[in-house]
Amino acid sequence: MEIKIGISNRHVHLTKEHVAILFGEGYELTKKNELSQTGQYACNETVTIKTKKNEIARVRVLGPVRAYTQVEISKTDAFTLGLNPPVRESGDIKDSASITIIGPKGDITLEEGCIIATRHIHANPMDVKNLGLEGVDEVDVKIPGLKGGILHHVSVKVDPSYTLELHLDTDDGNAHLCTKDTKAIILGPSNEE
Amino acid sequence: MEIKIGISNRHVHLTKEHVAILFGEGYELTKKNELSQTGQYACNETVTIKTKKNEIARVRVLGPVRAYTQVEISKTDAFTLGLNPPVRESGDIKDSASITIIGPKGDITLEEGCIIATRHIHANPMDVKNLGLEGVDEVDVKIPGLKGGILHHVSVKVDPSYTLELHLDTDDGNAHLCTKDTKAIILGPSNEE
Repeated sequence: MEIKIGISNRHVHLTKEHVAILFGEGYELTKKNELSQTGQYACNETVTIKTKKNEIARVRVLGPVRAYTQVEISKTDAFTLGLNPPVRESGDIKDSASITIIGPKGDITLEEGCIIATRHIHANPMDVKNLGLEGVDEVDVKIPGLKGGILHHVSVKVDPSYTLELHLDTDDGNAHLCTKDTKAIILGPSNEE
Repeated sequence: MEIKIGISNRHVHLTKEHVAILFGEGYELTKKNELSQTGQYACNETVTIKTKKNEIARVRVLGPVRAYTQVEISKTDAFTLGLNPPVRESGDIKDSASITIIGPKGDITLEEGCIIATRHIHANPMDVKNLGLEGVDEVDVKIPGLKGGILHHVSVKVDPSYTLELHLDTDDGNAHLCTKDTKAIILGPSNEE
């Protein structure tokens, strides 16, 4: 029941149209390194994210381009920026927080698009079967260690392309002192409200 | 079993001698506001904490002066500063991380003194009796909410002067989306290794 943990720092997903505005017409994102989920990669490109209160520079763009533009930050980042983004699944951006993205060639202001990502596990159908989690939407997960604990409301995202991994933001990762070697333990379906 | 949560941002405790070096001979710390624990207060004075890698400005000094100088930071701050401080009870600074403190009149470099504080509950003997926690060193504590969970290894600190409160650092507070109104639930003695 031990699974690998991936810590996601703040990052941005962009549409093709927004890449053109931020980096120039016809610009193609360039791959810095592959991520654990097949086909996903960190780009060499970074942007600045900005609000009326503050800004954070060198925010990594993840590729490939998507059907929506989304900024994923931690609650710590949210305090820095003076935002109160909702906790959401990736892609569920309706009525989420407004934010400005600044690239080398232009900027865009999103009316909505900034979220704190829900804690989630990527799993393929075989993983889900092996873990006895068929039909389970949310699980509780234990993180061992001196500042360990149990995370509630960890959503299970299933797709044949997925590699089994728990994705946490930097607040969860740092609060629990996660390193690249820390393994999480899936305890079973979440019973929390 | 619900108790109040206090979130501690990074802060510094100073000896009288170090106050003299940082703020000038004979300088007395001035009170900004009282903290929840009797006699403890946030000072108007702030310092910069610095390492070879980076620095963080406007770090609050807490009063009154103590018998030891100690810098308490989060793991997120530790990454910013390029440090790897141990998780320790306040006052247990032997072989903890080295850090430089810069004040308006001088600076000091501590060979040891920088820690990540253990999650802890302040309680007086009557609280401990009411909670059925006499003789218990560590408890598990539940935080409700969308990013809620259970914190393991929460130490119980008992003193007649204490006001019942759970103290968390900003990583734990932000990871669990704690606000000033969030209440924690003591589940009982911690069974974790």
